[in-house]
Order: sequence, then structure tokens, then C-alpha cells
Amino acid sequence: MARESIFTLEATPIKFGPGSVEDAGWELQRLGVSRALLVTDPRIPHIDRVCASLGGAGIAVVIYDRSRVEPTLDSLQDAADFALQAHVDGFVSVGGGSSIDTAKVANLIVSHPAPVMDYVNAPVGGGVAVPGPLKPHLAIPTTCGTGSEATTVAVLDIPEKRVKTGISHRYLRPSQAIVDPSLATSLPPEVVASAGLDVICHAAESYLSLPYTERERPPSPDKRPPYQGANPVADVWSSKALEYGGRFLRRAVASGEDVEARGAMMLAASMAGVGFGSAGVHIPHACAYPIAGLKHAYTPPGYPDDHPFVPHGISVIVTAPAAFRFTYEADPERHEAAAALLGSHASGRDALPDVLSALMADLDVPTLSQLGYDQGDIPALVEGARAQARLLVGSPREVSDEDLASILRASL
Amino acid sequence: MARESIFTLEATPIKFGPGSVEDAGWELQRLGVSRALLVTDPRIPHIDRVCASLGGAGIAVVIYDRSRVEPTLDSLQDAADFALQAHVDGFVSVGGGSSIDTAKVANLIVSHPAPVMDYVNAPVGGGVAVPGPLKPHLAIPTTCGTGSEATTVAVLDIPEKRVKTGISHRYLRPSQAIVDPSLATSLPPEVVASAGLDVICHAAESYLSLPYTERERPPSPDKRPPYQGANPVADVWSSKALEYGGRFLRRAVASGEDVEARGAMMLAASMAGVGFGSAGVHIPHACAYPIAGLKHAYTPPGYPDDHPFVPHGISVIVTAPAAFRFTYEADPERHEAAAALLGSHASGRDALPDVLSALMADLDVPTLSQLGYDQGDIPALVEGARAQARLLVGSPREVSDEDLASILRASL
Ligand SMILES: [Fe+2]
Ligand SMILES: [Fe+2]
Repeated sequence: MARESIFTLEATPIKFGPGSVEDAGWELQRLGVSRALLVTDPRIPHIDRVCASLGGAGIAVVIYDRSRVEPTLDSLQDAADFALQAHVDGFVSVGGGSSIDTAKVANLIVSHPAPVMDYVNAPVGGGVAVPGPLKPHLAIPTTCGTGSEATTVAVLDIPEKRVKTGISHRYLRPSQAIVDPSLATSLPPEVVASAGLDVICHAAESYLSLPYTERERPPSPDKRPPYQGANPVADVWSSKALEYGGRFLRRAVASGEDVEARGAMMLAASMAGVGFGSAGVHIPHACAYPIAGLKHAYTPPGYPDDHPFVPHGISVIVTAPAAFRFTYEADPERHEAAAALLGSHASGRDALPDVLSALMADLDVPTLSQLGYDQGDIPALVEGARAQARLLVGSPREVSDEDLASILRASL
Repeated sequence: MARESIFTLEATPIKFGPGSVEDAGWELQRLGVSRALLVTDPRIPHIDRVCASLGGAGIAVVIYDRSRVEPTLDSLQDAADFALQAHVDGFVSVGGGSSIDTAKVANLIVSHPAPVMDYVNAPVGGGVAVPGPLKPHLAIPTTCGTGSEATTVAVLDIPEKRVKTGISHRYLRPSQAIVDPSLATSLPPEVVASAGLDVICHAAESYLSLPYTERERPPSPDKRPPYQGANPVADVWSSKALEYGGRFLRRAVASGEDVEARGAMMLAASMAGVGFGSAGVHIPHACAYPIAGLKHAYTPPGYPDDHPFVPHGISVIVTAPAAFRFTYEADPERHEAAAALLGSHASGRDALPDVLSALMADLDVPTLSQLGYDQGDIPALVEGARAQARLLVGSPREVSDEDLASILRASL
């Protein structure tokens, strides 16, 4: 096979700092927007601050506040239909990854009208390529997680098909992000913990993904996948996010008043988003899909609604120690470097699993058993992880069904 | 004074790797260009490869090959006039910083017609703000230097006024860069050395610039200067560029066949460009302007034309050791960290000057005396450096005329 010799990297422009949300109106105006759809959900605070800034810049605002925590095809279609009626020339999303992803899709449909399903990745959806640039989109994350402001992907659930998939294209990347630590002070500690563990997985999986030079060269530039494997520039972002995660996550969870730590985790989320938007994630994220989807037996503390679900960061981190113990031999040095970035002084196969397990213990992360799974569920979980073939190709070590089963069993 | 609490960071999307130049046509087509002005100078090789790729994508090409090594107001106006006649809808620049900067300005004038001088920074020029986005511009650097593909600045000389100034605005940033190490194999070692020393100064000056939190908060977002001071994201880029400079510059100078080292220096140039495009440069770059401008007594080896001039990287690096010895006390730890990134194991005030001096000795960098200057020239050099007030505000330690004189004297 001809090896890949090329990688690409693109980052959302970021404006970072306490008070930067006051520039929301100025940024949208600079982007040429006069009437914006503000996409959020009703539990997100500080919407008034965003609206005041937009109003001050003379921008008309239409609010869509029905974005779902885990967007589904139906919830995205609802947002898209709403946006089409609203006659807007730009978008601002305020909230977590779900609000930002919902705005990405609404923007896509307003810019290039078609049923949402047409653009969903094949084979689930039509796999139609995004025909051209979208309207301006200002993303304002209010969590310390996802990094959606920096990525080209919108993730969505299709509950009736029990499948999680997405739409991905570079044109989905927001035009500008405002990352303001003062928006994250009221987040419950459990939400910060889950989001931060997701950030650490984005960074560690990217940093340890199969290097781009080990992958097959695509037949033409437009066949180059968004997830290309580890490369020197993505590494820079992923390393920094790991370092911040090791230094600041415990503090960010401990206190909402620790603006430095929460700000560092917000920045880490964006940096990891740039990194995994180029390099990609693999085994833990592939396993997270069925872990979040198959059973609904866990009611997470700290989340507003009293219904059972597995927060994304928890669904990802539970298999991370076992996954990285498995991938270790693909590149021992890199695994040890990742552990060191997280603050470990150990070496060897256990260094990275151990530093992750210690963090998980400090943050009261449940085990896979505590999420309601047992030995009997392993085959179904393996099948669900295997369905994420597009992620598993990024694993630095080839992973069989039996390997996945071992990783999942070790995570019970 | 109210302290700044916000920084911004924006990077040109980069496609990196041997053979990536073959994607030039695909990238321009993706950007919607059907007729491109190719800006270069006659000494740049590989133009045929770029033209073949554009032709293969069905893009009509008009060539402008009169970009000057050090662009002047007149040379830029010439390029702009040519571009206006050429009726193009996009730009591709191939060469060093001068070709890329020339394309930035030609694009500005085609997109928003006006005399070039209107847009030149006040007080030299009209200081008119760029009114809106420009046409697509694909930058293809062929040197291991400048980082112009990643910055928002075009530098220009006005010889009759003996002043170097520029045009800067985020809209000047190229839409996409292709960084292909196979384009740099034929560069003479002296050109690689000068370019690489410039990269190291971009990175070191940015990394050591006055932190953004020590600067005054601007009265409104549009008054935020492009050079904002050291910040955590610019630091990531600057650090990596320093590390690459320390590891790869000697090797890149030693052999054109060392594609890994020349590729690493090209990548370092882009990374340092992102870093200094956000944080800014200060004392060495301020001194470089008069050093390059006042006397024309030095004929550099390795450059094609047999006329006296000081290569930009040389004009910058000659004062760097003395400048960083002066700024050391502003933040000893950071100065030592910069030295360590360059490969030093020393600590203290001399660590960074020493590691730079060793590199300069290995690369046969002339002293300020060898460039034709002596004690009697110090006042004129100080005056010239002082004129770069917009750079000197970025110094981490306040710098008086007497301090500048000491730095320049120590560099003789
Ligand atoms: Fe994730
Ligand atoms: Fe420079």
C-alpha cells in the first residue's frame, strides 16, 4: 500500500478570557451577521449576557432553546426546520456540545437546504458531501468539555436504529469561538468531571492514534478522512491538553470559583478538539457508543434531570485504562510520554492506565459494572463498538473482537 | 490601568507533507477559484509543478513574477495594478515571505480597490482598516523562513523615507497554506540559515514577550492589536518552533537532501508564524529594521544577486543574545525554558544568549561590525529601532534608548 505522507490541520479562531462573552455582538457583526439564530437549551445560564451583547451590536436575535443533550435525527431536523422559518443570516450557539452541534446542523440546512438525513454519514444516511461554505457561526461553549467549537463534526443518535453517527465536513467548523471561563462557574462538579475526562480521552486517544504515515494514502485529496492519525501539529495540541488535564482537572472539579482551573479546562477542551479533529479518537470512543446506548440503568449525580443516562465523558473513560494497556506495545515511549504529561512519574505498560485510574478514583467515576453491565453484555458491547469501524481504524494496534471483549471485561 | 484579560488566536489551515504541492489545484478549486494570479519571483523553482496542478484542476493561471525580495511600496503597487488588470478571482503565492506578502497586498487591492498607501499603517500611510474579507489566497512557501503564510501582516519598505512598515489585518491571512518539504531541497545553506534564525527569533521573542495580562485592556474589541503579548496558546506554538529550531536547524543547513530536517524547519516557520502572529516580536525585530536599512555594506554569501544587503534573519539574530540578556530579569524562568527548548542544559542569565551564540557561530553569522556598523552608528540605529514603537511595547522589560544602545554596542 502507498503510505500517507500528508496531514492537514485547521483550527477554529479562538477568543479566550474572562469577559470575552461581551464581545459576542462585535464578533457576529464582524462576520457580517444582522439576524442570528441563538441555539441553546433552557438550562444554560448567561443567555441574557449573550443577548445583551448581540442587541448592543444591533443584531436581531431569534432563540431556539430546544437543543437536546444528546441530539437525535429528529431533534436536529426540528432545529433545522425552525431555522429555515427564522430567516437568519448567521448562528450563535451557547452551551455544551449538543447546542453547538445542533447549530452546526441547522446552519448546514439553512445554507444548503435538504433533509438532514441526506448529509448523515453513509451507510446510515445519504452521505452527501457538504456543497460549500455555511453561514457564519459563533460558538460559545459553557462547559469544560466536548471541544465541539473546534471540530468539524456533529454527532447524532438515531434511537430507533440504536445507532450513533454523525455529519462531518470541514465546512461545519464554527467560524469563531468565544471561550469565557466566567460562563463555567456554576457548573456542578460532576458535569465538570465528566467533561474533563472526555477532554483527556480526546487528547490521549489522538496522541496515541495510528500515525498518519502508517495509514494508506487516499486516492485523491477529497478522500482524505477528517481523522488522519497522529501528526506533529495535532500532537502539540493534544500534549498541551493532557498537561492541562493533569494539572487542572481535580481543581476545576473541586471549586466553581477556581476560575483559573475551569478556564484552563475550557481551553484544554478547545485544544483537544483541534487535536482530535485532525488525528481522531479510537477504542475508548468506539466503546463509549454502546456503553451509552445499550442500557439505561445509571442515574448520574449532579445532572439536572432525574433520568438514567451515562454522561459522555464517563462512557468514554471507563474503558480507557484497559484500552491503553492493550495499545501500549504499539509505541511504549508515547504511552509513557502521555502518562508523564498527565503527571505520572512511572514508566512501563501500567504508567498510563495507573495515572488514569488514580484520577478516576479521585473523581468517583463508576465502573462499567456500576453502569449496569455484566459479563453477559460483553458480546453486545463488542458488536456496538465494532460498528464504529471509522474510529477503530485509528487504533495504533489492530484490535480484534476478542481484544475488544478483553478490554471491556477488564473495565467491568 | 485596566489589565487585558483576553487573547485571541487564529491559524491558517495548513496542509503539510512531501508531495502536498500536487494538491494546489484541488485546494484552489475547493476555495471556489477559477482564474488565479500566481505571485512569485523568477528565481523560485517548481513553478511548473504548481502550474501543472492548477491546470489539472481546470484553473486558468496568470503569472506575476516580479515580486521583490524586500517589497517596497512601489513594487506592491505594481503587483496590485497588475492584479487589477488580470481579472482574477483568487491568488496563489509561491516563494518566500516577499511573494506571499505581495500576494496579500495584491489581493487586498483587488478585493477592496484603493491606493496601497491608504492601507499602510499610520502614521506612514492612511491606516484605513480593511473593509471586509478578501478573495481566496493559497500560500505555498518554498523557504524555511518567514512564516508569512500564517500571519496577517505584509511588510514593506519605503526607501525614500528610509522606513519599513506594513499593512496588517486578520483578513490578510491566507486562506490555506501548503507546506511541502520537497520544495526546499534546492535552497542554498546560507538562505536556510538566515530563514531558520528568523524563525528562532520569532519563536523566542513571542515566547518572551510581555504577557497579555500585563498589557492594557483596549477600549473596544476592534482596538485589540494583532500583537497581543505572550499567551498560553501562542506559547504552545512558539515552544514547539524553538524545540524544532534547536533540533533541526543545523541539519537543515548542512544538507538539502535532509528532507526531514528541512521539512521540520518549514513546519517550525509556520508554527512560529502562528505564535508571533498572536504574541508579537519586540527588541531584535525592532533593531533589525535599521540594521537592514541604514547601511548596505554587506554582501551575503549564498544569495543569487551580487548586491549588498542584510538577509532578514541575520539582521534579527545579531542583537538577539544581547537583547535576551537584557530582558532576562523580567522572567528568568521563561528565559531558561526558552534556552532549554533550544537544547541548552545551562541556567541563569547567560543560558539563552549562550545557546544562541553557539548556534550563530556554527552557522557563520556575521557580527554587527561585520555588517559594516561601528560605535559611531549606534545613535542612528537606536533612532531606527525606536521608530518601531509598535514592536517595542511588546518587550517584557521596558527598554530606554540607553538600553537599546547597550544592546546594539554589545552586538558589535
Ligand atoms: Fe468525546
Ligand atoms: Fe522576522
